[in-house]
Amino acid sequence: MPYELYYWPGIQGRGEFVRLVLEEAGASYIDMAREPNAEATLTAFLERADLAHPSFAPPFLKDGEAIVGQTAAILLYLGDRHHLAPSDAAHRLWVHQIQLTIADLVGEAHDTHHPLGGDLYYEEQKPEASRRAKWFRKERIQKYLDWFETILARNPDGDAHLVGDTLSYADLSLFQIVEGLLYAFPNTTKAILAKSPRVSALRMMVAQRPRIRAYLKSDRRVKLNEQGIFRHYPELDD
Amino acid sequence: MPYELYYWPGIQGRGEFVRLVLEEAGASYIDMAREPNAEATLTAFLERADLAHPSFAPPFLKDGEAIVGQTAAILLYLGDRHHLAPSDAAHRLWVHQIQLTIADLVGEAHDTHHPLGGDLYYEEQKPEASRRAKWFRKERIQKYLDWFETILARNPDGDAHLVGDTLSYADLSLFQIVEGLLYAFPNTTKAILAKSPRVSALRMMVAQRPRIRAYLKSDRRVKLNEQGIFRHYPELDD
Repeated sequence: MPYELYYWPGIQGRGEFVRLVLEEAGASYIDMAREPNAEATLTAFLERADLAHPSFAPPFLKDGEAIVGQTAAILLYLGDRHHLAPSDAAHRLWVHQIQLTIADLVGEAHDTHHPLGGDLYYEEQKPEASRRAKWFRKERIQKYLDWFETILARNPDGDAHLVGDTLSYADLSLFQIVEGLLYAFPNTTKAILAKSPRVSALRMMVAQRPRIRAYLKSDRRVKLNEQGIFRHYPELDD
Repeated sequence: MPYELYYWPGIQGRGEFVRLVLEEAGASYIDMAREPNAEATLTAFLERADLAHPSFAPPFLKDGEAIVGQTAAILLYLGDRHHLAPSDAAHRLWVHQIQLTIADLVGEAHDTHHPLGGDLYYEEQKPEASRRAKWFRKERIQKYLDWFETILARNPDGDAHLVGDTLSYADLSLFQIVEGLLYAFPNTTKAILAKSPRVSALRMMVAQRPRIRAYLKSDRRVKLNEQGIFRHYPELDD
């Protein structure tokens, strides 16, 4: 039975971290965001009263009777099943720790355009977004990418992967982060990447994996846009 | 060898979720935040160049040679070792999913007083904090506590615990969330708790566990204050 991935239609968002894992794994899945009436289906699922494990928010993954929510928990689940996580416990936990730090970065990236809350449009909080984005651009992107560069440099199994010498879901997620940052903050991110050779190389390595390459060229890959987490507002990247 | 917990001195913060687990487990640990020169020790540790698994930020836990960062990952690690997580994989993942949702709530609670970023004091972003806190107070606290109440109600093993019929680290963390919300937003939170009997009962149950009760009365429990995540600014709870 194929997996069913539930997420908001029309954006990459947090769902994209799951899609990249499913695509790299060659897993059979239905992207429910691309089905007819996707938003109504998602909302109805979130409101189902018969689920013992309801998710607080999308994305969530349905695997037969099992439903798993929270992006990092979904990747923990899929990583084990599709050989995208180390088999020994210590490295498995380290991959997860990296993923949780990526989740923090995703939250901060979102808040650059919504510092006052999700109940207002970006256009209603532009001065505040400008202030928050400035801090993110001047300090936070650098600090996060430095950390990834450091981890790669210190990996005793070589600097091609974040953990061990094979691909993990954290590598796929770092690729996605870099793509998102380059889209939203191209000036800032290009300058930092120029001094981050290992992160840059990892990004290229992931993009060239056959299944990821095919996916990125396909129409299954939603284009980054100004409804998602990584939004390009030129005024926020000055 | 005792665990060493590294975190910022003087606040409960994210470190408190780890402390509650260590206390309930009766584990031997050194709270490095209470040692002399705690902040300098922490900063020096974060800057160590010899660690293969450096943490991006505190809290992190040292267990012999192993170092684990990210609150939810630390709890995943400790939960297995101290019987504060279910042994079967599906329930173990469900506890973790709940913990990750708690982590999201913690992030939102922090942003009520720092919507523009961590590089400014609260006093420099009061109007923006007022706006962000309003949304948190009017919509988000309710939505999160409703979700916890629903999970408890739907637990097939009874509504005394979030998962299964024994205490898990998620129960301890929900207790901590409620304590924090009651401190920071007493008016709002009391009104919601009055309609959340299961969450209220869980809070009392955790507070009365012998080791937690002893801990809460001890001077090891830092008092909530206006340097941490849950801060009581009366103007944000109107």
